Amino acid sequence: MPHDRPPRLLIVGGGFAGLWATRALAGTKLRITLIDRRNHHLFQPLLYQVATAGLSAPDIAAPLRHILGHQRNVEVRLGEVEAIDKHNRQVRLRDGGTLDYDLLLVASGATHAYFGNDQWAPHAPGLKTLDDALALRRRLLLAFEKAEAEPDPAKKAAWLSFAIVGAGPTGVELAGTLAEIARHTLRNEFRHIDPASAKVRLVEAGPRVLSSFPEVLSLKARRQLERLGVEVHTGTPVTAIDAEGFHLGENFIPARTVVWAAGVAASPLARTLDTPLDRAGRVQVQPDLTVPGHPEIFVAGDLAALVQADGRPVPGVAPAAKQMGRYVAGVVRARLQQRPPPPPFRYRDQGNLATIGRMAAIVHMGRLKLSGLLAWWFWLAAHVFFLIGFRNRLVVLLNWAVAYWSYQRGARIIFGDADGEPRDGGPPRE
Amino acid sequence: MPHDRPPRLLIVGGGFAGLWATRALAGTKLRITLIDRRNHHLFQPLLYQVATAGLSAPDIAAPLRHILGHQRNVEVRLGEVEAIDKHNRQVRLRDGGTLDYDLLLVASGATHAYFGNDQWAPHAPGLKTLDDALALRRRLLLAFEKAEAEPDPAKKAAWLSFAIVGAGPTGVELAGTLAEIARHTLRNEFRHIDPASAKVRLVEAGPRVLSSFPEVLSLKARRQLERLGVEVHTGTPVTAIDAEGFHLGENFIPARTVVWAAGVAASPLARTLDTPLDRAGRVQVQPDLTVPGHPEIFVAGDLAALVQADGRPVPGVAPAAKQMGRYVAGVVRARLQQRPPPPPFRYRDQGNLATIGRMAAIVHMGRLKLSGLLAWWFWLAAHVFFLIGFRNRLVVLLNWAVAYWSYQRGARIIFGDADGEPRDGGPPRE
Repeated sequence: MPHDRPPRLLIVGGGFAGLWATRALAGTKLRITLIDRRNHHLFQPLLYQVATAGLSAPDIAAPLRHILGHQRNVEVRLGEVEAIDKHNRQVRLRDGGTLDYDLLLVASGATHAYFGNDQWAPHAPGLKTLDDALALRRRLLLAFEKAEAEPDPAKKAAWLSFAIVGAGPTGVELAGTLAEIARHTLRNEFRHIDPASAKVRLVEAGPRVLSSFPEVLSLKARRQLERLGVEVHTGTPVTAIDAEGFHLGENFIPARTVVWAAGVAASPLARTLDTPLDRAGRVQVQPDLTVPGHPEIFVAGDLAALVQADGRPVPGVAPAAKQMGRYVAGVVRARLQQRPPPPPFRYRDQGNLATIGRMAAIVHMGRLKLSGLLAWWFWLAAHVFFLIGFRNRLVVLLNWAVAYWSYQRGARIIFGDADGEPRDGGPPRE
Repeated sequence: MPHDRPPRLLIVGGGFAGLWATRALAGTKLRITLIDRRNHHLFQPLLYQVATAGLSAPDIAAPLRHILGHQRNVEVRLGEVEAIDKHNRQVRLRDGGTLDYDLLLVASGATHAYFGNDQWAPHAPGLKTLDDALALRRRLLLAFEKAEAEPDPAKKAAWLSFAIVGAGPTGVELAGTLAEIARHTLRNEFRHIDPASAKVRLVEAGPRVLSSFPEVLSLKARRQLERLGVEVHTGTPVTAIDAEGFHLGENFIPARTVVWAAGVAASPLARTLDTPLDRAGRVQVQPDLTVPGHPEIFVAGDLAALVQADGRPVPGVAPAAKQMGRYVAGVVRARLQQRPPPPPFRYRDQGNLATIGRMAAIVHMGRLKLSGLLAWWFWLAAHVFFLIGFRNRLVVLLNWAVAYWSYQRGARIIFGDADGEPRDGGPPRE
């Protein structure tokens, strides 16, 4: 650490880990730069709501400059880090610039992973950013429009066939919501299709849905999904995906809209650290979240792979990322004050929640296992409470109040042209 | 009109004219098809709010299917009409299909016009659709980001230099809001620029701003703009616009962000009608809003050019479009019931409103001339009342309530990448 000037801490990524670390370092003598390729912090747990047109994109995001404007020791920068140069303590940006650092926290998160089948990516988009959510919303809304206009019954059915791959919380939330949209929200709105005839399939290679929950709650979730009309397939991996549909084991199922919620991998930035990674590309960190041999480099959030003393890996969930971010801030503060470092990082599991549909969810906190409507209220309160921004909380509550009474969804807007070039920079669609 | 089957009415465009005509024909024996290239009806008067990140795009739009779902005699279709074949009573769609009609209402509205200088279009985008608004929002937010990262003082100043061309209601609203954002909303959020040093210029070729208002209100509006920090130039036309700035008469003024609010022209569809158009490309209609020689074809809204008995043209404003739409419905109903047609269309000017900033507006209704805060409340009430959708009204009121207390704006989110390919399908920016 330099003696003659304030140490410079560079934080890459304004997600849960990076932002919580930044805020926990308010008032310290550091000069912090937080750099993100987007201008906003995103509340990822509600991304599926944007993707299913229940919320607008700005409702679940807050500009980083607004969040951190008053914290005088931090400067926000919009830009993309392409590579980390450990030896020169420098990062290289995509626009060609460089940034020096004394301390570095890499918290650039995760992106979609297709288990070696990257050719599936254009046919089965994932859901990690606002752009992903808007692109998915567009695809979902357009699928019904295409079905309405399609005279051939087989093609019409293919447009009304949806599949979600991966039954973790994201997949389950998407499947349940999509089924509700088809059966309730869009009822009466079409003249050549019955939206309720849409087939929503949720496909999971593992033995049960929501495998991170106790079995009894997995079962309740599955029953709730089936009550909503979702066709749940467990124990069967997807073996191929193309523009027309997907292969489930041996069978081909036509589906013009397939969503990938089955796997994430670490941001490619990890590779430039030139340090051991796990199979998903995450950085294998020391118990104090530093990179082996480089105590000045921290990794936190989805990018960090840490197996704790009890043998369990830290999960890639928002509360873990926040805890890691705060932990890193604690380690840095100790160094600044020349105190002994805190004990190794320990993830405190404060509970696990997933919502299945309009008014059903499952909640697991220690010995407490809830399901159904009570769990849903719990889920709602937790998500609203943890959103950033008073305005966002109000708007989200409002949207849910309206949806509670009707099945209406407040953001069913398709941007860009319906045919030809999409407006989201993705490849042209049929 | 056919005798053996219900007459088919095709309505092109789901804006104010098309939608109001459709709803006014509920319960009649027609088979109506409403076709629009977007899936939503847009409340254009509040588009500037989306462009300045005050509202989310879905807040001012409502899906056409949702609005018309319960009207059994109408079917909504997503598609783009490319040409009208009067002789065969058919329209041709962009995707190659055709639609037959017995009656046709063309209400496809207006788009930007650059008075023969189309080469200015990429440098000075306009504001007519949600895509325009999102693209403009992106440009505005990115301009401050670019200024923050730019070391050269002259280039920094150019990024902080904004110009709006055209001082009608849209231009005035944009200018006032942009000045507020620079001076208040973004205060404290940057470290290398003072956002309040941004220059906002409003340029008008005519002698005064808001020329459709009485002179005394124009003057009040101008003073209010100047109090907000907007530099107002009247009586000076813009003679050139490029990527670096614009020419005001002889002088070149650097400005990396120029917005076009100076002129609209009719949608190109009008030309395929092969009937006399005015200079702005609008269809010169009969007093009953039909195309000369073709009583089965109506034109309403911004696409129609009608000079009334008192010599005054019908203005291209939302209330006029609604009135025209309802009028066309009245003519059609009379024909269906074989009654005499209603008297010629007469626009009833119910008042003119424009907002200048957070709490100032001007209102002109007959002899009533209001300005300042009282006018603003009036303006707010009118706009909220006329929005479609209970949810939208609540959300918009909520956003304004929050903004009333703070200067915060709820939708300051940049989609897509900050460098390289934008995510809206537009050309790459620097």
